[in-house]
Amino acid sequence: MSEIIKGVRQMKGAQSIEFAAPPYILESACVCGSKEGEGPLKDTFDYIEEDSLFGCDTWEEAESALQEKTIDVLLEKSGYKKTDFRYIFAGDLMGQLIATTFGILKFEIPLFGLYGACSTMGEAISLASMTVAGGYANNVIAMASSHYASAEKTFRFPLEYSTQRPYSATWTVTGCGAVVIGNATNKSEKNMIKGKITGITTGKIVDYGCKDSQNMGACMAPAAADVIEQNLIDFGYEPGEYDKIITGDLGYVGQTILIDLLQRKGIEITDNHMDCGIEIFDSEKQDTHAGGSGCGCSATVLCGHILNNIKKGIWKKVLFVPTGALLSPTSFNEGQNVPGIAHAVMIEHPNK
Amino acid sequence: MSEIIKGVRQMKGAQSIEFAAPPYILESACVCGSKEGEGPLKDTFDYIEEDSLFGCDTWEEAESALQEKTIDVLLEKSGYKKTDFRYIFAGDLMGQLIATTFGILKFEIPLFGLYGACSTMGEAISLASMTVAGGYANNVIAMASSHYASAEKTFRFPLEYSTQRPYSATWTVTGCGAVVIGNATNKSEKNMIKGKITGITTGKIVDYGCKDSQNMGACMAPAAADVIEQNLIDFGYEPGEYDKIITGDLGYVGQTILIDLLQRKGIEITDNHMDCGIEIFDSEKQDTHAGGSGCGCSATVLCGHILNNIKKGIWKKVLFVPTGALLSPTSFNEGQNVPGIAHAVMIEHPNK
Repeated sequence: MSEIIKGVRQMKGAQSIEFAAPPYILESACVCGSKEGEGPLKDTFDYIEEDSLFGCDTWEEAESALQEKTIDVLLEKSGYKKTDFRYIFAGDLMGQLIATTFGILKFEIPLFGLYGACSTMGEAISLASMTVAGGYANNVIAMASSHYASAEKTFRFPLEYSTQRPYSATWTVTGCGAVVIGNATNKSEKNMIKGKITGITTGKIVDYGCKDSQNMGACMAPAAADVIEQNLIDFGYEPGEYDKIITGDLGYVGQTILIDLLQRKGIEITDNHMDCGIEIFDSEKQDTHAGGSGCGCSATVLCGHILNNIKKGIWKKVLFVPTGALLSPTSFNEGQNVPGIAHAVMIEHPNK
Repeated sequence: MSEIIKGVRQMKGAQSIEFAAPPYILESACVCGSKEGEGPLKDTFDYIEEDSLFGCDTWEEAESALQEKTIDVLLEKSGYKKTDFRYIFAGDLMGQLIATTFGILKFEIPLFGLYGACSTMGEAISLASMTVAGGYANNVIAMASSHYASAEKTFRFPLEYSTQRPYSATWTVTGCGAVVIGNATNKSEKNMIKGKITGITTGKIVDYGCKDSQNMGACMAPAAADVIEQNLIDFGYEPGEYDKIITGDLGYVGQTILIDLLQRKGIEITDNHMDCGIEIFDSEKQDTHAGGSGCGCSATVLCGHILNNIKKGIWKKVLFVPTGALLSPTSFNEGQNVPGIAHAVMIEHPNK
């Protein structure tokens, strides 16, 4: 009870936080399935599992095994023990977060369970950063996962039905990404730093009336536009402030809508926009239509490709904006809209 | 960026936080269904809705309407506008938090979506308190809801099946509770204070191998015992430190197990234990078997009965421990266990 963080009041603008004592991303781990392991980012993943069931009997258990493997890799890469983490902020797409429940069980880390659809990695990093910067923990884990088969079974049709997919459909990524967020209090931790989290902008639910669960890019783009605009307003930035503005899983359809929506507000991001869903697959060769999606899409691209480029200094400052489509099979079948939500995280090269 | 909170390092023991600048519960609102409105706590609810569909066409929409009504009541009671809240921390039991999505949509408040099964109100208040005490917001909302019909349909059987319920089964509460957590920076807010949040203990997932979705008290009791014991260890307290140790929805079966588990560790809480699930219904007259359950159970009992008694000074200090059973219909049907989780919140009379 003796330390003081100066200038602890960290609110910024209407929806943002600027951290007085920015927390760091100390390590990351990402584990993927075989399809992701054949894509353009294959060299950035820590582990590629060829068995889509991960040695289990069901798709749900497979997703739990994927999470467990990811934390195992994270512990191995970082050198931390499970008891070094005061909290884990984690979630997945399954009803009642069942993949997370059984995925993290053995690690016995106090849990804050989160649901933000495919924006969950943004939500997890936001709360994890607030926790570390607020003096509530030295090191925590933020994690999100998805699995192609468990997600299709949950949200659309079991794969065994061989349903035809429209071109607006995205392909749920089988993947899990996890990061250690910490305050780097000692020298060895300072040497680990991969990136610095300088701020966040937390999204609202945005509903433009879209009802198509096979066109989630269109459902999520308005929420992405809303939170990106708010981030720029809250910090007084032009889009060029960021080397990249990186959305989670809008895909080709959602990207077009996002750029269009922002242009109507006088914001031009064409030159520095990137979407994890577009990057993770070679859509033409891999038949993934509009691109990749799922919590695991932005989480794995962050934990591999994005953090690699930030650590190398190729990108000095990025806005990472995972995007989520808020539907359930029940709400969809009852004719409800599919609103969107997106959470923005500002990640900088540690020495910027 | 100019204020300083002294002694901001707030970690306490292995799993707890002691707030250097304790946030306050400034206002609360609770809305219930007709069965709850006929129970022993009927006079503590703000609004009792006789129509179990809340004027909607589906049970899921009814639960969203319940949430919307609760925030409307909260705004009315507190005098705040929706724009006075920087964040809302909220969740429900539905897959993909669909009741919350449509329940809070119209308020346009930045959302952290949470899933902690029936422990969600504890999780929401924990994160909301960390947010306010960390200088990230002046006022936020923490909220959780459940609905008897939407929960039975999700987790067990649709009501139309008229399935017989064993005596170990609990009755999911149709109810929603919401609190304003704030730092009470001005005089009118200081006059509003209903309680002070001095600390939290965040729970781990605890799995004793229970598989019975009709005996959730047994599934959750080990997690409750674990987090209560940890709270006492972290703060160096005897159980008598608290006027009441209040679990969420263990019911009669879970209460017996909890007391027994803690006695084996030398901790005696028989005299000061209370369970919201036991209090909310008259089990004999209302045929609710083991008691009430659901996120809405502990949330509504907190927002009415518990905060009333704290504000009046009848209880000076309570440990509020909402308890959650981590199952989904899918995991249950695949033969998985039902682990538990519980989150403890220390609430004191404002002048203690």
